[in-house]
Amino acid sequence: MRRVQVYDTTLRDGAQREGISFSLEDKVKITRKLDDLGVDFIEGGWPGANPKDTEFFEKARGIKLGHAMLVAFGSTKKAGTPPEKDASLRALLGAGTKAVAVVGKASGPQVTQVLETSLEENLRMVSESISYLKAKGLLVLYDAEHFFDGFKANPDYSLAVVRAAAGAGAACVVLCDTNGGSLPDEIAQAVQATRESVPVSVGIHAHNDGDLAVANTLAAVRAGADHVQGTINGYGERCGNANLCSILPDLKLKMGIDCIAEAQMARLTETSRYVSELANIIPDSHLPYVGASAFAHKGGLHVSGVMKWGDSYQHIDPSLVGNRARVVVSELSGKQNIVYKAKEKGLPLPPDPQQAQRILDRIKELESRGFQYEGAEASFEVLLRRARPDYKAPFDLVDFMIIVEGRRRMPSAGGSQEVLAEATVKVKVGSKIMHTAAEGAGPVNALDKALRKALIEFYPNLVAIKLVDYKVRILDESSGTGAYVRVLIESTDGEENWRTVGSSANIIEASWLALVDSLEYWLIKQEERQKP
Amino acid sequence: MRRVQVYDTTLRDGAQREGISFSLEDKVKITRKLDDLGVDFIEGGWPGANPKDTEFFEKARGIKLGHAMLVAFGSTKKAGTPPEKDASLRALLGAGTKAVAVVGKASGPQVTQVLETSLEENLRMVSESISYLKAKGLLVLYDAEHFFDGFKANPDYSLAVVRAAAGAGAACVVLCDTNGGSLPDEIAQAVQATRESVPVSVGIHAHNDGDLAVANTLAAVRAGADHVQGTINGYGERCGNANLCSILPDLKLKMGIDCIAEAQMARLTETSRYVSELANIIPDSHLPYVGASAFAHKGGLHVSGVMKWGDSYQHIDPSLVGNRARVVVSELSGKQNIVYKAKEKGLPLPPDPQQAQRILDRIKELESRGFQYEGAEASFEVLLRRARPDYKAPFDLVDFMIIVEGRRRMPSAGGSQEVLAEATVKVKVGSKIMHTAAEGAGPVNALDKALRKALIEFYPNLVAIKLVDYKVRILDESSGTGAYVRVLIESTDGEENWRTVGSSANIIEASWLALVDSLEYWLIKQEERQKP
Repeated sequence: MRRVQVYDTTLRDGAQREGISFSLEDKVKITRKLDDLGVDFIEGGWPGANPKDTEFFEKARGIKLGHAMLVAFGSTKKAGTPPEKDASLRALLGAGTKAVAVVGKASGPQVTQVLETSLEENLRMVSESISYLKAKGLLVLYDAEHFFDGFKANPDYSLAVVRAAAGAGAACVVLCDTNGGSLPDEIAQAVQATRESVPVSVGIHAHNDGDLAVANTLAAVRAGADHVQGTINGYGERCGNANLCSILPDLKLKMGIDCIAEAQMARLTETSRYVSELANIIPDSHLPYVGASAFAHKGGLHVSGVMKWGDSYQHIDPSLVGNRARVVVSELSGKQNIVYKAKEKGLPLPPDPQQAQRILDRIKELESRGFQYEGAEASFEVLLRRARPDYKAPFDLVDFMIIVEGRRRMPSAGGSQEVLAEATVKVKVGSKIMHTAAEGAGPVNALDKALRKALIEFYPNLVAIKLVDYKVRILDESSGTGAYVRVLIESTDGEENWRTVGSSANIIEASWLALVDSLEYWLIKQEERQKP
Repeated sequence: MRRVQVYDTTLRDGAQREGISFSLEDKVKITRKLDDLGVDFIEGGWPGANPKDTEFFEKARGIKLGHAMLVAFGSTKKAGTPPEKDASLRALLGAGTKAVAVVGKASGPQVTQVLETSLEENLRMVSESISYLKAKGLLVLYDAEHFFDGFKANPDYSLAVVRAAAGAGAACVVLCDTNGGSLPDEIAQAVQATRESVPVSVGIHAHNDGDLAVANTLAAVRAGADHVQGTINGYGERCGNANLCSILPDLKLKMGIDCIAEAQMARLTETSRYVSELANIIPDSHLPYVGASAFAHKGGLHVSGVMKWGDSYQHIDPSLVGNRARVVVSELSGKQNIVYKAKEKGLPLPPDPQQAQRILDRIKELESRGFQYEGAEASFEVLLRRARPDYKAPFDLVDFMIIVEGRRRMPSAGGSQEVLAEATVKVKVGSKIMHTAAEGAGPVNALDKALRKALIEFYPNLVAIKLVDYKVRILDESSGTGAYVRVLIESTDGEENWRTVGSSANIIEASWLALVDSLEYWLIKQEERQKP
């Protein structure tokens, strides 16, 4: 089975996406996760250009990787500077990795118009930089920046650059579609020409500006590239880099080209979500293969099709990539979907059809007031349980009050002065009523604290629960701040994550409902786990 | 110039995406918008299957379209039923459109295993349904469901189905990659075989399960398809449908294949955002061509490259699709980015370098406390203006207080009982202090109302401003409800939209800061407009 090398650049090119800023600790965690996934190379950053990246490579010397090789990224030397005196090359050497990637222009117009140097000087910059690093015993990859646009404008020059790189000792010439606008056929043709020009490995680095990054990567592999670059979830500047979470299963499961092992492929979904968590980017549920909706069925036709023949509406078995099929509970759902969903959770609906109908009616009523269970399966489960005649809630709410006060003058530009938030909460557990008060950083925090203060007396291990994400959505935009507000909360106990929903015109009440569902869900589960 | 037909199915297949539920009014608005964009066909829905869609087609008789033809979608008749008695075909006729799309299986295994009928019966269902509708004077398109998977399993049968459809009078056979898992080469091969088998137009309907929907559509067009189907923003079930916002510019700007006119192409970005607004889905800023980040430059290297040569880091001129280039203000920004940004807004930084440095320091400090100006350009502008020595704020805040009270017992499952929210606000305009109070649906609404009550005395036209979107993000997940909270508010005065940001550990304070920025921004602009 033919195999391609996998090169991840989430930590360098992926971090160029708007809104991403990895901490040093994040970078270390992601490095380990990528190693577990089985990629061959992990590009850790650009030492010298960025103090955090320099520090990362220092720290990385202590990381033991199972398979992957850590790579430091940098540019070719400056025109006219001897390699040993060039700051960029020295920073690369300083990183202490066994492999380095050097980027240099492979496009005539870019050399003359942006780099503002001669075509010959650029060839020297590429080959001298590579020879120097190679002589230091490093494995050198050459990133041919703007290769495809250059190949269109002046193919001879772009090929001359990659020949110079290969001649100087680069182990791989990585062809970059830097502006991301090439078409698959253009990519295939240029890769083919490169393979005929250099005796070394040819790589592909695609961007998604034409919505073709994955297709361009596959086209390059078909044309003979044996090294693919990309990022987890396709993170990257503008429209992103080629998405490894799509490329790897496309290669292995559809094209029969090896890349990572089967057991590693089954970690793909988990890896995708892990990286999105650390990137602090809400996971895109519509991502191919790894998205929460990638194998979700909503239409009634599809659901009944899937019940007859599992693969009738899915292109692969989702477990191959560690994902799973699910049926969406939504306003379009018929009774069949809800019955299926309840079964999936081991919660058979009451056999009494009237009672089952009451649950459906209740769901419809709540949805009309802004509740949405698509992203809040724990609230859905709590709702089903509450409807059971034998259900006993672990606690009941009596009332609450919060006060937020900004007594001193607030500077309109920053608001650095403290604002007070205080909550009082009354809850009932069994026959006992607890009345507590707490201050908090904000009103939801104050409520959360006051509620836990009351409950922890009865349920001490509630301390383990943390809030992971908190999303707010205004439902009817035309009503401004008076509209219904939907709050989605994601919680974790360190092992499992679950999501709950609350909806109200009052953001505090909506948050409160989601918070209560979250604690109630966990207490129910906890109780079940403790049963013999 | 070769031309392909464009068929939009946002209102039918697009609406299958989780979370989308178009109102009747939304559907009418989107129909007009798509007509303006210049698509040839607009699939409005599935009459009969869904009461809202039936109602839509009734209402649609009153809509005058400039170019597009409205299409009703439905399935082929049931096995054994005569066409004139079939409920699905009658619903299609009842829609009153000039064109209809009928979907029927074009895959042997799907016919026998899911439809549970014979291969011959399915051929009859397809051809009799089409003949019947054609005889009623309708333009009939045939959606060949599961065509590509069927073609892999049993090419002869799949081709027999499309031949039957063409023979019965279908104007176009639309080949569907229903499960979305095909590769571009498979698509090209099957389209080629179909073209050799039928004398009618061949269409392509792709899904994105392999991250290849756009590439598969382009591959089909290269292989001779002359009709492309897709949705705005790629909305659709699971991983979505092929994205017309990528396909149209790929075809016209890169492949030289005509589809919509140049002036219409320049509306693409606006159309994308309009549909996402009505779908109530936050626009994906990383979408190719139409995303807010599609032509955004963050890295310092890229920014200086763009300054030298506009096209050095962009694959097309963004104005061709109605988008624009921009420089991202972020923690990675150097001074150069901020200077560029300020110039873009017509706000030169103070020539005094110390003063300019103070602004940069202030931005860095605010960013470290969770402010982020990437999505909040109005707050950035207010920040720059406040830094000018001659700036006079339209109002100053003195203090505020809010109370939220849930005195009566709240039912834990729904919380239908009212919760009180009340705010008091003290603001200063000139030398006058206004002290107001208001109740609201929630605390932010109460603050908003109290603040407007105070300001409207001085600025009566503030009534025009509405809140359009309100997003909340927890910044450091490990701190739970005590973490910094970033609030992004989008406001509109009916003509322009603008976004502001607030950040604090207190969600009320963060909302308040964003609210104040929003009103202050608009008042400044208003004042400038009124200057002679």
